[in-house]
Amino acid sequence: MADSQQALVAAIRRRELRPLARLLRDIDDNVPGADAMIRALWPHGGHAHIVGITGPPGAGKSTLVSGLISAWRARGKTVAVLAVDPSSPFSGGALLGDRVRMMHHATDPDVFIRSVATRGALGGLGPSTLEQVGVLDAAGFDIVIVETVGVGQDEVDIIRAAHSTVVVCVPGLGDAIQAMKAGVMEIADLFVVNKSDRPGAQTTVAELVRLGRMAPKADGWRVPVLRVVATTATGLEAVVDELQRHRTAGDGSDRSRARAIHAISQAKRRQHESALLPWLESSADGQALVHRVVTREMSPRDAADRCQ
Amino acid sequence: MADSQQALVAAIRRRELRPLARLLRDIDDNVPGADAMIRALWPHGGHAHIVGITGPPGAGKSTLVSGLISAWRARGKTVAVLAVDPSSPFSGGALLGDRVRMMHHATDPDVFIRSVATRGALGGLGPSTLEQVGVLDAAGFDIVIVETVGVGQDEVDIIRAAHSTVVVCVPGLGDAIQAMKAGVMEIADLFVVNKSDRPGAQTTVAELVRLGRMAPKADGWRVPVLRVVATTATGLEAVVDELQRHRTAGDGSDRSRARAIHAISQAKRRQHESALLPWLESSADGQALVHRVVTREMSPRDAADRCQ
Repeated sequence: MADSQQALVAAIRRRELRPLARLLRDIDDNVPGADAMIRALWPHGGHAHIVGITGPPGAGKSTLVSGLISAWRARGKTVAVLAVDPSSPFSGGALLGDRVRMMHHATDPDVFIRSVATRGALGGLGPSTLEQVGVLDAAGFDIVIVETVGVGQDEVDIIRAAHSTVVVCVPGLGDAIQAMKAGVMEIADLFVVNKSDRPGAQTTVAELVRLGRMAPKADGWRVPVLRVVATTATGLEAVVDELQRHRTAGDGSDRSRARAIHAISQAKRRQHESALLPWLESSADGQALVHRVVTREMSPRDAADRCQ
Repeated sequence: MADSQQALVAAIRRRELRPLARLLRDIDDNVPGADAMIRALWPHGGHAHIVGITGPPGAGKSTLVSGLISAWRARGKTVAVLAVDPSSPFSGGALLGDRVRMMHHATDPDVFIRSVATRGALGGLGPSTLEQVGVLDAAGFDIVIVETVGVGQDEVDIIRAAHSTVVVCVPGLGDAIQAMKAGVMEIADLFVVNKSDRPGAQTTVAELVRLGRMAPKADGWRVPVLRVVATTATGLEAVVDELQRHRTAGDGSDRSRARAIHAISQAKRRQHESALLPWLESSADGQALVHRVVTREMSPRDAADRCQ
């Protein structure tokens, strides 16, 4: 390992802001130099508690995250946040207001917050988010939060890669809870009913508790349903407690294996795409293949068979 | 080509409901038999106008789609719709109501509507949606609509694969329009301001027109901004007209090539993943590799280097 790289690894493990921010950006941009750093940092990770926070637009996820940061800081924990897709045109809900709420953490050297840059400026995340989480873990943050709006397979995959997943709801989203029956129980380790001072909170809580009973977790974990008012920091201690309890109780070896498999397949996907796309776009053979698909002489699957 | 497969291709090209629905489901489930059908149908496609419709939850996309179906049907066009992610827990907005609105198209043999099944019950779409669009195209539908909530890279990729993309807005989503500056202009070929009988519609229209002037399209297309009230079918004829105009004017060879490249890379990704994941999960060598990642002995990228 080159001296300069060793120095950079050390700087990142001291959680120095600028090298860290730089590396995360390089990962996004798929800069060649990032590759060696990702590999070099990997052995240092594995200690952070990775917490996924997801829920519909308008559920108050960012306010909740901001409150949780304060709660963890009060317990002496260092916290990193990857806020995925906050500027998406389609994430709806509050955008700027919540960001402002987070500003007071910006001067805390033990808090690192980053909005994940997105390919093509539109929301969306790919293999790089997972690797960014890995870097924050290796940097030594105790807690790494990934906040996402939770639509899209890639985002669900990221959430699946967390140790603990919090699904945030608000009272009165009747249809949303109906729809949730389909699949959210599967990924939620903790339900938070935010804005629970609003009418209908008790109904929402009861419904979630009932859902939890209907679909028990394989590892015996009973999914808690917690009432919170994030704007006044009400109920946040219980969220932190339950997350800690889940971290201690859960995350058996099956889940570690699933995370590793996901990480390898994402790395492989990235390798393939960074070789395939330039070949299709620029090489004579690749262009000829694309032409045959355009003219319908060959199907994309047949063309894929002919790519290396 | 086996007789049975030839018969199935013929049935699908007659747009017979059951074989078509069956094939789309098989593509979702990655059933081996679907592969030959996808390849066999490919030469028959290339005639449909593929229209992406996207926008934030609550913008009334489904109502708009339903109205556009009627407008196209009145012009004698056959229409297929892939509604992506309607039951997502996180898509928010109206769920059941809009589906009901679409019911009256269900008895029209020249309309085919399908909610795209999603991996793991949570919203999200992958390579299969693109291939489903290809099948509907080959089946001979004049118009193939892909409706998505538009968050997540996979969904944006699907939208990019359309000939024409409609971005649906509603008055009063000020923050959303702010955020849109970042990237939506890039994919929108047509802006529709739905619910434009509401206060603030004119401001929203003016803002979108201004944005359109700031970021002209490479091919010289001026992005129209159209006012619509989907619930009363007001303004829908103009949308259909402009889409037709865009189809005639646009879609040069660059865009066809980009679509083909995307389709090939998605096909390749599917091939890789369907080989890699079982190998990692079940083979002795794969499991050993996963174990080394779990124990931090090896990074996911290093492990990916060792996969075939």
